[in-house]
Order: sequence, then C-alpha cells, then structure tokens
Amino acid sequence: MTRAQLIAQIQAKKSVLCVGLDPDMDKMPAHFPRTAEGLADFCCAIIDATAPYAVAYKPNLAFFEALGVGGWQALARVADHLGSYPHHLSIADAKRGDIGNTATKYAQGILNELGFDAITVAPYMGQDSLQPFALPGKWGIALGLTSNPGANDFQLQSMADGRPLYAHVLDAYRTWMSPEQWMVVVGATRPEGLASVRAQLPEHFFLVPGVGAQGGTVEEVMRAGAISGDLGLLINSSRGILYASAGDDFAEAAAAEAERLVADMQTHWPDEV
Amino acid sequence: MTRAQLIAQIQAKKSVLCVGLDPDMDKMPAHFPRTAEGLADFCCAIIDATAPYAVAYKPNLAFFEALGVGGWQALARVADHLGSYPHHLSIADAKRGDIGNTATKYAQGILNELGFDAITVAPYMGQDSLQPFALPGKWGIALGLTSNPGANDFQLQSMADGRPLYAHVLDAYRTWMSPEQWMVVVGATRPEGLASVRAQLPEHFFLVPGVGAQGGTVEEVMRAGAISGDLGLLINSSRGILYASAGDDFAEAAAAEAERLVADMQTHWPDEV
Repeated sequence: MTRAQLIAQIQAKKSVLCVGLDPDMDKMPAHFPRTAEGLADFCCAIIDATAPYAVAYKPNLAFFEALGVGGWQALARVADHLGSYPHHLSIADAKRGDIGNTATKYAQGILNELGFDAITVAPYMGQDSLQPFALPGKWGIALGLTSNPGANDFQLQSMADGRPLYAHVLDAYRTWMSPEQWMVVVGATRPEGLASVRAQLPEHFFLVPGVGAQGGTVEEVMRAGAISGDLGLLINSSRGILYASAGDDFAEAAAAEAERLVADMQTHWPDEV
Repeated sequence: MTRAQLIAQIQAKKSVLCVGLDPDMDKMPAHFPRTAEGLADFCCAIIDATAPYAVAYKPNLAFFEALGVGGWQALARVADHLGSYPHHLSIADAKRGDIGNTATKYAQGILNELGFDAITVAPYMGQDSLQPFALPGKWGIALGLTSNPGANDFQLQSMADGRPLYAHVLDAYRTWMSPEQWMVVVGATRPEGLASVRAQLPEHFFLVPGVGAQGGTVEEVMRAGAISGDLGLLINSSRGILYASAGDDFAEAAAAEAERLVADMQTHWPDEV
C-alpha cells in the first residue's frame, strides 16, 4: 500500500483508527475454544466487525508466539484474512531488529511470506538493522518515543547536547527514512513529546499506541500530531476494542467502540482536511 | 540451566564455544532439500557434529521466520533436538523487546513453549520490557555493545556525562539484572569496548558474536573479557562452522572448525581456571 492509497482511505472514512490485535486466551469471549484456532477465529471476527471503521490492523506477534508453532499457524491465518481487506494497512507489530543480513531474513518472512504491508522495528542496533525492511511496496515502522514506563530509562535520557536520546534517534530517521515507506511509533501517553516529535518529523506518519487503557486521549493526539492535508496519524486501540464485551455480543461491542473512537477522531478532525 | 551448571560444563570441556545456527538455504550443503525440513535436518546434523566441542547453541530466529509457518515448525524441531542435549545451553537469538505484558507473552512462547534456556532481548523500551524474561531457571541475554556498523549510530554516541549510550545501558543492567540469570551481548569486533564492558560488569557472562567472518579474534576476546575462575564468556561462531564445507563432508568440516576454535580458546585460557 502506498502513502497516497493510505491517505485516500483515511479521507474516505474520516478515520485514522488502527485496531491492535493482542488476543489473549484469558480475556477472549467465553465461547471461543482456548486454542490457537480459537484465537485466530476471534481475531478474524474482530476484523470483520470493525472493518467499516478501521484503516489499519496491527497483530502483535508476541500474543501468537506465546502459543508456539500453533500460534504461528494462527498468525498466518489472520494475515491471510487481512489479505482479503486490501484497502486496510496490515501491520505486524514485531519490533524486530538485528544486523543487516539477519534483518533481511525477518523482512522476507514477515513482509513477503506472511504478506504483511508493514512491520514495527527497534533501533538500538542502528541503520543497517533498519534499512532491509523498506522492501518495494512495504513499510517499516520504527520505534521513536514509546508509551511505556521504560521509555524513561533510555529514550528520555539526555545526550551530550542536552536533548534526549529519542530526539537523536528521530534526527537519524529523518536522514535515513523516506516518509513514503517509513512511519514512527510515538506513544499517546506523552502528548508534549508527540508535539515535539511532530516538529522534528513534519512529514512522517506516526503510529500512536497508548490511547484508552494506557491513558492517552484521541483529542490530545489529534491536536499534537495531525498534519494538515495528509493527517499523518494512525491511532491504535487494542484492548478497548477487543474486550469491549466478553459475551456473545463481543463483535457488536467491538464495532460500537470502534465507531465511538472514530466519532471522537472526527470531532477533532483538522478543518483543512 | 544454572550459572553453576554452565560453568561446570565450560570447565569440563575447557570450551566457551557457542555455535550460532543461522541456516541459509543458499549456503547449505547441496544434498539437503531446499525446504524447512531440510533446514532443520541441516541444523540437527551440525549440532550432533559439534556437540563434543560446544557448550551452547544459538539459533537465530530470523533464519527460520524467513520461511513462514514452516520455518517455525523447523525451529520447534531444532529446539526439541537441543532438548536432547541438556548440558548445552540453548539460546533463542530473537532480540525481542516490547512493553511488559507483551514481553511476558514472548517469554512464554520462546522459553516455555519452545523450551529454550535463554533468549536475546533489546533494551530500547527499558526495564519493563526486559524483566519478564527472567523466568525461573531461564536466562535473558540483553544487547550491550553490538558488533555491526550500526553500533556507531546510537550505542557509541555520547550522553550528557560524555560516556557513550551503551555504558549507560550497562549501568542500568548492573542495577536491574542478576548475573545468575542475565548475560550481555558484547561484540568481538571492538576489543577495547569489550574490556571497558568487563570493567563495568565484572560478574556477568558475555555472549560474544563477531569472531571469524566479522573480524574479531578468540585471543582478543579471551584477553579482554575472561573472568578468572568463572570465565564468564560464550564466544559465538556461526558461518565459519556452518559453512566450513558445502560438500558431503560438511559435518566433519564443522566439527574440525569447532575443534580448531576450542584449541584456540585453550591456548589463551586464563591460568587460574
């Protein structure tokens, strides 16, 4: 999916909703079997229910890998199902990162074999660990400023010039990464950080987790992060949608929560878009 | 495997050799089928041939994930095979890292479901992304100073006090991580870095890649990194052993290369061990 295609979907739906698929057997509706198959069925049902509202889906690979080989079979089924929604961006939330020739193997497996449009990647090992993910027609989504407490440990620590590490990482991204194939992860739990990241990277799309359960709000994210015209945001919600109801009405409840989030986005939609 | 058990193996064999399993279809001996099954067969044959010399094995997950679901089936077979060598430490080179509840899922999948003794992890997201890997009886192996060119991009950049980022990461590791359950990755391509890491972390085991194809030598690593008594090193070799021969004699050639590396280690073995 190209940047122009993604923006067209965002404008058509007036939505920047990314649904995070973090399926947990302990929280799934009771009628799904507690198996890898059941996990995949649950994800596919959530996708079908929320497709009118979402522009992107983001399975987190950890929740599949937790089940071993069966979990990868479930992930492949979810990836296949996402393939039947070609107008939605499919993101493997994998946070991979390794030396160049090894990163190429991750890219091959997740972007080509499983067929995801995009993959999240971690920057600690530097440029050669990131570049292999920019395959033709695919996206890399690199960690910038994350939403978890551990962001304080390194990302927010000061470098020699007094600016935090994450700002240096973003400087490097601006040099290395085309906005046509790269996005950056910026947590919603730090709206002041989000505004400074937007000032540093005026063109790149941001993938923004942390709205809802982690405490960020759609309004803050839209105000601090939106680019006029292109929007430049994907706002992720996982648990709030997946577990909106634990009963037989889970799909309707997930759709209603997705619709509510999109209405919230539309309330704060920049005028000029 | 406990630290005491690992040290006992190292002293019994007078070896700190970790064999890295980065199986590549383009480089495997010709008689293995170019399938995930063939890839697993190749890894198992390498394990059997080198077991008298090695104390640890380290499959890199990227080379398995490259094949999609079949690759995970191959990885599970290799993990099972490693289970039949309980005196060798099995390391999943996965470089995972995500927020706390998600890291718990990675730990569950790779350490419990697949049964690896240890997993490599990346630090960018901080403490809550690392701690879930220290499961009872298991090891986390955290990136410190890596051997690739990209280590210059962030790890070697100066923080506010003039010391490089990786030194701050190691300070944090010293506070967070028990040497009984945590190791640190330190590349062999920077022996001066290795000595300074050892000065900072006098007790932790180091997993050292970069000997051989990447340019580091066993002598430099032993001199800069060994701890008297405990040794405190695992020196990894991947391509030099796996592709010692592309012919029918690949297993003998792999064993001979492993034996040669161990002899090199023994030449530089600290006297007091």
